[in-house]
Amino acid sequence: MAPKYAPSLRARLPPVALLLQIAFIVIFTFFVEIGDYEKKKAEEFIFSYAKFQDIHVMVFLGFGFLATFLTRYGFSSSGFSMLVAALAVQWATILNGFLLFRSFNWKIRIQLKSLVDAELCAASTLVAMGAIYGKTNPVQLLVFALIEVTGFVLNQWLIQTMLQTRTHWLYSIVLINIFGALFGVMTSRFLFHSEMQLKHEKEKVSRMTGVFAMFGTLFLWMFWPSFNSVVEQNTDVMCSTYLSLAVSAVTATAVSVLSSSKGKINLVHVQSSMLAGGITVGAVVTSAPAPWIAMMIGLCATLLSTLGLRYLKDHMLFAFDCHDTVGVLSVHAVPGILGWSAQLILRLATFSNSTIAVRFAVHHICILLITVCVSLVMGVITGLLLKWSFWKPPQENKYYDDQAFWEFPHLLVHK
Amino acid sequence: MAPKYAPSLRARLPPVALLLQIAFIVIFTFFVEIGDYEKKKAEEFIFSYAKFQDIHVMVFLGFGFLATFLTRYGFSSSGFSMLVAALAVQWATILNGFLLFRSFNWKIRIQLKSLVDAELCAASTLVAMGAIYGKTNPVQLLVFALIEVTGFVLNQWLIQTMLQTRTHWLYSIVLINIFGALFGVMTSRFLFHSEMQLKHEKEKVSRMTGVFAMFGTLFLWMFWPSFNSVVEQNTDVMCSTYLSLAVSAVTATAVSVLSSSKGKINLVHVQSSMLAGGITVGAVVTSAPAPWIAMMIGLCATLLSTLGLRYLKDHMLFAFDCHDTVGVLSVHAVPGILGWSAQLILRLATFSNSTIAVRFAVHHICILLITVCVSLVMGVITGLLLKWSFWKPPQENKYYDDQAFWEFPHLLVHK
Amino acid sequence: MAPKYAPSLRARLPPVALLLQIAFIVIFTFFVEIGDYEKKKAEEFIFSYAKFQDIHVMVFLGFGFLATFLTRYGFSSSGFSMLVAALAVQWATILNGFLLFRSFNWKIRIQLKSLVDAELCAASTLVAMGAIYGKTNPVQLLVFALIEVTGFVLNQWLIQTMLQTRTHWLYSIVLINIFGALFGVMTSRFLFHSEMQLKHEKEKVSRMTGVFAMFGTLFLWMFWPSFNSVVEQNTDVMCSTYLSLAVSAVTATAVSVLSSSKGKINLVHVQSSMLAGGITVGAVVTSAPAPWIAMMIGLCATLLSTLGLRYLKDHMLFAFDCHDTVGVLSVHAVPGILGWSAQLILRLATFSNSTIAVRFAVHHICILLITVCVSLVMGVITGLLLKWSFWKPPQENKYYDDQAFWEFPHLLVHK
Repeated sequence: MAPKYAPSLRARLPPVALLLQIAFIVIFTFFVEIGDYEKKKAEEFIFSYAKFQDIHVMVFLGFGFLATFLTRYGFSSSGFSMLVAALAVQWATILNGFLLFRSFNWKIRIQLKSLVDAELCAASTLVAMGAIYGKTNPVQLLVFALIEVTGFVLNQWLIQTMLQTRTHWLYSIVLINIFGALFGVMTSRFLFHSEMQLKHEKEKVSRMTGVFAMFGTLFLWMFWPSFNSVVEQNTDVMCSTYLSLAVSAVTATAVSVLSSSKGKINLVHVQSSMLAGGITVGAVVTSAPAPWIAMMIGLCATLLSTLGLRYLKDHMLFAFDCHDTVGVLSVHAVPGILGWSAQLILRLATFSNSTIAVRFAVHHICILLITVCVSLVMGVITGLLLKWSFWKPPQENKYYDDQAFWEFPHLLVHK
Repeated sequence: MAPKYAPSLRARLPPVALLLQIAFIVIFTFFVEIGDYEKKKAEEFIFSYAKFQDIHVMVFLGFGFLATFLTRYGFSSSGFSMLVAALAVQWATILNGFLLFRSFNWKIRIQLKSLVDAELCAASTLVAMGAIYGKTNPVQLLVFALIEVTGFVLNQWLIQTMLQTRTHWLYSIVLINIFGALFGVMTSRFLFHSEMQLKHEKEKVSRMTGVFAMFGTLFLWMFWPSFNSVVEQNTDVMCSTYLSLAVSAVTATAVSVLSSSKGKINLVHVQSSMLAGGITVGAVVTSAPAPWIAMMIGLCATLLSTLGLRYLKDHMLFAFDCHDTVGVLSVHAVPGILGWSAQLILRLATFSNSTIAVRFAVHHICILLITVCVSLVMGVITGLLLKWSFWKPPQENKYYDDQAFWEFPHLLVHK
Repeated sequence: MAPKYAPSLRARLPPVALLLQIAFIVIFTFFVEIGDYEKKKAEEFIFSYAKFQDIHVMVFLGFGFLATFLTRYGFSSSGFSMLVAALAVQWATILNGFLLFRSFNWKIRIQLKSLVDAELCAASTLVAMGAIYGKTNPVQLLVFALIEVTGFVLNQWLIQTMLQTRTHWLYSIVLINIFGALFGVMTSRFLFHSEMQLKHEKEKVSRMTGVFAMFGTLFLWMFWPSFNSVVEQNTDVMCSTYLSLAVSAVTATAVSVLSSSKGKINLVHVQSSMLAGGITVGAVVTSAPAPWIAMMIGLCATLLSTLGLRYLKDHMLFAFDCHDTVGVLSVHAVPGILGWSAQLILRLATFSNSTIAVRFAVHHICILLITVCVSLVMGVITGLLLKWSFWKPPQENKYYDDQAFWEFPHLLVHK
């Protein structure tokens, strides 16, 4: 049989991308203006500038290179995350402005802070994309991103409206991870084909791509303390996160060796799991834990995450027909939920009055439940929508391969 | 015929580089001292420190990795830009001190700000080098860099002297791009050989080198908002640039697919074009445009840039015998000139008095004309100088290849 | 003979790493708390935050990628430095707290500043590791790191106790380099096998790994001005370091060509030597030299360093049976000692009173002698300890190879 060529995206990607882009520009024309509400003091500005840069690097470089470890998917994993994040940021700016920070008679004023907020939404999308990388084309990813951002902002709006919570809570780093991971996994469930049960020959790391992924991971790892202190701007949070991440790096390597029958380290597992400490501590930020608590939390999260990548990922595939490319369930959802529980326990211990404690617990659990429900429901919708053949999804044999989407020079190698 | 070896640079590169280096040290000994004129407030210092770091990263990492996409040219594109930028920065410090910031009785006082100014000159050199990468040896690049920096500073001095303009104008990011690109293209025109009409077998991207170039591009893309706000230090400019760059990333991908007959994306085109928004908005910085204007400008610039890379680049080669390795004409000159025109229109709209408006327009157009003339004339001189066989230019068959310049271990691969 | 498999580390690495990790958490539980002694002003905080980020990036990304140039050692050089640095930072925090910043009744209060101090210790370990990369397994590296950090802190404690010097002196960037390099070289001496006399087939750079190493080196090079100004927070130091590094980059390339018989550049030598200027100027930070002095020092240091890599490295191997993977002796020790001498001369020139001058000289030389002695003695101990077969050291034929430690997918390449 002749090789089936990948379907051309010429009639899909440009119209979708350009139409969305022009629509966004139109919306920006009528509703968005740049400017601060009040003049800030110089030092505050500098701080938000440094924060902005760190988050910017994390989202576009860190999360963008999450899946570069795939041996033939370097162009796509870096290029598509760029494309998706760039569009998601614009959409998130608009949605955030309308749903969360209303009250300025239909004019959204944006500033560095708004861009950071929008980038956090984009981060959530990039987390979610981890589950479907390699099995989708860029048009599908754009649609996926739009719905994910909508869902993420909607979820925050729901929490804000139903529970009357303060805003800074909502941006908790943890919701980004939990929402993104569950949304991605649920979407991936609906994109399942029976051929995915077999390990795809291109779904593996190579000597070089492993080091690329290390670069991306390192930027996430190094800047995660900044990420966690976006909400609560203090250095104590940075120190806790730092220590937790250090413990994670050590634990991830040790557990990876321990769970390997040949006593070897799995680079991809280590890279993913060494972020678990940061994610988990992100959840307990507001209770400012002692360093040893942050470290213990980091240890447990990494343990669960590494074991999850070894065993849970395959289990999800075989038992639930759910293929998860970078293992976002173990890497983002599990540490997120662990951190959420840790936060509950830590906060409950501080209340003397049991009525307040119970109210806090209910409140806290409600936020998680709402998030889980919204993410799963939106994931189902997205999954069904993406199955539509209108999007020209790639064939099975073109999975995890740049060649379906990118121009390559003639493949003959001249020496 | 036996393979012709690349000519040894042992008798050229060390003498030229060391002589220049020692000459610079001697000049520094007599004319340069470190120190502020007045003590700054702490917060100002911090800001310039952050700015300095961002520009530093952009110049050495971002612009330095522009041409790493060439499959066999990774060592050279990163190593030579390092070498050239390190020398250019010293030369620019001296020239800037003497020509632009005189008045301190032959003593140049330098500070972080001076280094940023010098790095902007170096950035202009690196842009220009984009046109001649792969077809020159490092000695030629050093000579090229010296003349380019001289021309760039001379151009600013001319503008300052003839038009009595304020200094901050001169450092406009746009002049860097326009001057650099035109200078590079003109030099490249004079280095043309008839064999260049044919596509060189090594002038292509590979799976790995594409991702390296993505890294470099991302650092440029991420830090471009800082770059544009060097002149006007406010966050509004950062936000506009950010939005424009986001639009660029989406548009570049869409247009690249649209203009490909197979509906595939060209990674190198996308990488180059997604910076167009930043370059163009850099020109309109002083008129603080509304976000939608910045976004529209970004869209148009990227459209022109991507189409330029697809069609204009080949046209330049076949019609004008001008080979442009990374397509600096489309990537830097076209968005620069577009931005310059946008700035003219935006500013004209704000003047109520037509006399002032006309004066501004003449002034504005003069700066551009002076820049274009100086860059083309200096480019011609450089091109003629570099043709001199004294520099031992590499042979045609060693173009785009590290092996002509770098020690490689025995090429046998052991597994 | 059947291929000998690398010994499994399953019974060594996880117990050692997890035990150490749990021990550290226990120590943190009882002795460490997060918090400032006094509330800082906002601007101070911001500055230390920026500093912290720069050092963080340098240690984990810069020093961590020092040895990625080895063609088959990318996973190990990046992964193991991560592991070692993460553990070393925790141990250094504890030791620093107890030995150097005591007086708080057995409670160590940590803040961003403490983490920077701990990272400087980790940097010293990573420098030392340069000498033994590729010839050791991760368990040996962990043991090595623990002793190195202990030795480094002990050395500072000795200097502090015996010479009653001010603390900020001790953290001089130079001691990090001198101590680390001598410690590493001495350890490497004891790990010598006679087979190391022959060049190992995997001890070489490849097209791609060279560019990876360039990335790491660039981050060190770009952020070294921040590194040097950790001790003395002023921009004059940053400017001097910057100029010195620029001179280094030019000189390293020129000298590398000059010392090559074929007139070609050695990428690894250039990468290592272009940092020499930064190391050397780090030593003269407190005497705030004129720019030309910093540049001259940079020139000399780079000259020595590049020639050292060409000739001294092999000489050490053949004459002293000491194999030094990345050439830390030439790259870190030689520039360090040169800088130390330069500092002595520069300072002596400023004293009018000869008694004070002599006292300073004795003091200065004593610090160096103590550091050299402690590093060599600790290196001997570590070398002897690491020879112990309990650690299951890798066999000769698995040197410089990731495959001994990392899971690889089936090595068949599918196209």
